[in-house]
Amino acid sequence: MATYKLTYFNFPALGEPIRFLLNFGGVQFEDNRIEWSNWYQIKSTTPLGQVPILEVDGEVLYQTIPICRFLGAKFNLLGDNEMENYKIDNVVQTITDLRMKIEMVNFDKFSPPNVVEEKRAQLKSETILFYLKNLELIASKNDGFLATKKLTWGDFYFASMIDYMNWMMKENLIENFVNLKRIYKNVMENDKIKTYIEKRPKPQMG
Amino acid sequence: MATYKLTYFNFPALGEPIRFLLNFGGVQFEDNRIEWSNWYQIKSTTPLGQVPILEVDGEVLYQTIPICRFLGAKFNLLGDNEMENYKIDNVVQTITDLRMKIEMVNFDKFSPPNVVEEKRAQLKSETILFYLKNLELIASKNDGFLATKKLTWGDFYFASMIDYMNWMMKENLIENFVNLKRIYKNVMENDKIKTYIEKRPKPQMG
Repeated sequence: MATYKLTYFNFPALGEPIRFLLNFGGVQFEDNRIEWSNWYQIKSTTPLGQVPILEVDGEVLYQTIPICRFLGAKFNLLGDNEMENYKIDNVVQTITDLRMKIEMVNFDKFSPPNVVEEKRAQLKSETILFYLKNLELIASKNDGFLATKKLTWGDFYFASMIDYMNWMMKENLIENFVNLKRIYKNVMENDKIKTYIEKRPKPQMG
Repeated sequence: MATYKLTYFNFPALGEPIRFLLNFGGVQFEDNRIEWSNWYQIKSTTPLGQVPILEVDGEVLYQTIPICRFLGAKFNLLGDNEMENYKIDNVVQTITDLRMKIEMVNFDKFSPPNVVEEKRAQLKSETILFYLKNLELIASKNDGFLATKKLTWGDFYFASMIDYMNWMMKENLIENFVNLKRIYKNVMENDKIKTYIEKRPKPQMG
């Protein structure tokens, strides 16, 4: 049996879709939650100076989305054909585009506060709605799932990134999106995810 | 037989890995190169206001990397197992991370020129070397290919993105990377890619 060791901070963000997938897969893994005070020391030992990192039988995997797709393949969460796999990849990329647009504003430490507030307002009134409408339209065809008519790794990625984006924007972004809420609920009420969430450590934000 | 129609501008950039893959696959496709003057009209008809778009039997595919992976699957350019597929996804993501860092500087229309020049100098002296060293190390293990010991869709993505990044940075970024140069050459000297490059329209930059 494969051994898994995940290295990330003690908060959800980019580590969480990987934790969701490992918990869903029902495999044992070491959930190595690093302290902020150790970060710079650990950073220099990673291939691109970033986490999450997933070690699988000692092999170091980095880059969140490729790791998620890899686990999706392991745990039978791919599409049934190449077009379905495209559809999963596509929604994951779209969520990522949105996430990065939010991060650029949320973690903007250089612009004056009023400029950041302006950008944040534009995110709320335009960008976020634009992307979520695209995802809602796709979801409306898939009966409780995001990319295709069955549970895929894209649903786990979606639900964990919604949590992360909600945290950055300090509101529930999918409140008015019926189908996206249904997908989110399907993931969060999955038995294995529920059990994990109940026992996960209290996040330690930076 | 599937019908393919690619819609993109009349230049390489993000359209080119898709054109490379379609040419390598040997399929007929409509290479719809749009004029700048028509862009805003076309933009509003696309799912996310962006191109490239690939129509496959009338179905609209968008998002460059998911499209490339889809074509990679069609044309027998995936890895032989899930770990190999992870390795392809990983290098493609790393190239994308670098490409976006270069784009953010190259297309920065807001910062004062001296700030842009400073950022450009840092790209050259640090960021680009950091990412390319990562890729060179991986390539050094794969005997003329990027992600695994055989030709995959990642090699086509790499070669076309090197052209795009070289154009943005106005120099040959891989000049001092023996293994990356070898991969680039392997792609560019592929018979089908060579034939395509010889006949491709002269790019019309914005």
